[in-house]
Amino acid sequence: MNIAVAQSGGPTCAINASLVGVFKEALKTPEIDAVFGSINGIEGMIKDELMDLKLVIRTNEDMELLRQTPSTVLGSCRYKLPAVETDDEVYKKIHENLTKHRIEAFFYIGGNDSMDTVDKLSAYLKSVGSDIKVIGIPKTIDNDLPVTDHTPGFGSAAKYVAATVQEIIRDSSVYSIESVTIVEIMGRHAGWLTASTCVLRANDEIAPHLIYLPECNFSAEKFLEDVRSMQAKHKAVIVAVSEGVKLPQDSKRPVAVDNFGHEYLSGIGKSLEQLVKDHIGCKVRSIELNVMQRCSSHICSKTDIDEAELIGSEGVKRALAGETGKMMVYKRLSDVPYVITIESAEASAVANKEKFFPRRWINDAQNDILPEAEKYFLPLIQGEVKIAMKNGMPVHFKLK
Amino acid sequence: MNIAVAQSGGPTCAINASLVGVFKEALKTPEIDAVFGSINGIEGMIKDELMDLKLVIRTNEDMELLRQTPSTVLGSCRYKLPAVETDDEVYKKIHENLTKHRIEAFFYIGGNDSMDTVDKLSAYLKSVGSDIKVIGIPKTIDNDLPVTDHTPGFGSAAKYVAATVQEIIRDSSVYSIESVTIVEIMGRHAGWLTASTCVLRANDEIAPHLIYLPECNFSAEKFLEDVRSMQAKHKAVIVAVSEGVKLPQDSKRPVAVDNFGHEYLSGIGKSLEQLVKDHIGCKVRSIELNVMQRCSSHICSKTDIDEAELIGSEGVKRALAGETGKMMVYKRLSDVPYVITIESAEASAVANKEKFFPRRWINDAQNDILPEAEKYFLPLIQGEVKIAMKNGMPVHFKLK
Repeated sequence: MNIAVAQSGGPTCAINASLVGVFKEALKTPEIDAVFGSINGIEGMIKDELMDLKLVIRTNEDMELLRQTPSTVLGSCRYKLPAVETDDEVYKKIHENLTKHRIEAFFYIGGNDSMDTVDKLSAYLKSVGSDIKVIGIPKTIDNDLPVTDHTPGFGSAAKYVAATVQEIIRDSSVYSIESVTIVEIMGRHAGWLTASTCVLRANDEIAPHLIYLPECNFSAEKFLEDVRSMQAKHKAVIVAVSEGVKLPQDSKRPVAVDNFGHEYLSGIGKSLEQLVKDHIGCKVRSIELNVMQRCSSHICSKTDIDEAELIGSEGVKRALAGETGKMMVYKRLSDVPYVITIESAEASAVANKEKFFPRRWINDAQNDILPEAEKYFLPLIQGEVKIAMKNGMPVHFKLK
Repeated sequence: MNIAVAQSGGPTCAINASLVGVFKEALKTPEIDAVFGSINGIEGMIKDELMDLKLVIRTNEDMELLRQTPSTVLGSCRYKLPAVETDDEVYKKIHENLTKHRIEAFFYIGGNDSMDTVDKLSAYLKSVGSDIKVIGIPKTIDNDLPVTDHTPGFGSAAKYVAATVQEIIRDSSVYSIESVTIVEIMGRHAGWLTASTCVLRANDEIAPHLIYLPECNFSAEKFLEDVRSMQAKHKAVIVAVSEGVKLPQDSKRPVAVDNFGHEYLSGIGKSLEQLVKDHIGCKVRSIELNVMQRCSSHICSKTDIDEAELIGSEGVKRALAGETGKMMVYKRLSDVPYVITIESAEASAVANKEKFFPRRWINDAQNDILPEAEKYFLPLIQGEVKIAMKNGMPVHFKLK
């Protein structure tokens, strides 16, 4: 039998580690012959653009480099399968290509949109009497997938954000004048990554002094009041804000819509910078961590990368055991010591759904994160991967 | 005798390493008693805000942590000394405070504005018959100081920028659609840091496909033509552009002026993004590396940090040997193997002057860097500092 694997959605530092997990498990499994990589997610399965991964990932060194290379080595897509009732053409096409290549299990590494694909495709294959298994491997820096304790890719993003915000704190604190520094962090609807900046308190940082999540109410007046009250205590005020925080009265904010109909916001940092400029008048700077927060593998979390590989390999075991239409999940058994197990859940329980940052970990003023959340976040950023360097720069794995 | 040290200008990853160099050399020198740290640059000398550094930097571990902590532990300033002919009040004040604390040598770690201070203050002290020495220790991520081969802080910034642009290349290359990614890099007038992205070619990257420096002519038409011609060869085009690149016809760009009368530009990345959106219409994103490029010590260059410490300690030796009004400089003896020596030059030769990226290392089309420049840049980003970690995050030294 052969298997296939594909990667989808926005890049993270851990998607390739999950691919390596699937690949290594296949190498260990005598009944698996070829491992095909589908180019640009499910699009490769539709267009029959597959690659025999054993021909390109040839050595242990290749696997180690790929594990620490960010983004998706097989490309990605934002393609959403149509409802099978209205259009079953692509389903037939995928089935045909899977059959043609004797693929008996397909692994899709992605976020909640990809789990929609896992759910629909597995249902279709069952409905036509096929025995081909479809398993989802989660990934997203947003940490917003239900059922799983956390998502592969999140820990590395949180580690980068913590290290970077700490450096920004040092940078912002040098002058003797008052200043406000606003750090805009990814998260359209869920504030997990922004909230994770609270881990800096474990290293004796007071900042960020204010943390705003999309889960909370937000207004310009309240924000300015919060900043002013922090300025009474701190010369350099540091604010962490999720990109998805809404300023309802600000009609100037650009709103775009991606292929899935998600609103794509940008610019809350700039809006808040302007507010401070206009109403407080001190030195102010906004900083967007932009794509670096999802692709900065040079400071990835070893815990995240190791788990991402493991959840990929566990996915293969589940498919071989006969499961389909499932997403692999982490279950946390204990914070200290940190212990997880890997299980599976119905992909339909995850598809198109979001998990929000819990209200119980947000303070009453809705501008800070409570200490209880630190215990959740800290284990996820532990450990450093020994990054392979050449000429003073990290080495990335590339398809030849 | 006592000595004093201060830090000035914008943060880098190496300013504290130079402070450690001054401090360690003082510890080794029997005739030096106290090492005073002047708070917020020369302002501390004027206001008599000094700190006995032996009371706060107490152990070898403190020194090692301080060496790898970004920004300026003693704070910074952008204060410029007035011409002594028009106003000698602050000079008298500084002289008074130096004398009061038996300070016989003052070390100023900073950029070309700080060398103006070194030049003026040393001339004043000589003119009033004082024997107090003033020595400048260079720093700036811009690498734009004359006389010295390169500046402390530049190598670490270049290493961060190279690693980050490589990650952005991976991130930008995942989708099957055409895209343009514009990375805006610091450099108001000198394009050294932007040019340094050419080091990625040593690790088999083709990108950045286009590199624009403030030293070159630039127009919207030429830029769009360059992008279109790169799109014929590359699906995902990556552009590196210095913040100081001028779009003469773009009246929308905000121009602010800092205390030294420097124009402070922001937003060339956004302007180019808009140009691509309007005239090419493909997916486009601009990314500002912002303060991270000057303060991301978690991926600093060992060569840079080691040299920054060494140039600080050499400065102490020069002052004790009787030099004053000098800035310490690196002289490069060889690229391969990389060999430098540390010498001193007149601070007046550096004060208020800028060194531009050489025309001979820019291609004829003025949109790329020639391979000869790689030999200059590569030695500066070599080696990694073992970063002290706690709770999964770097540990920063803080004054108690």
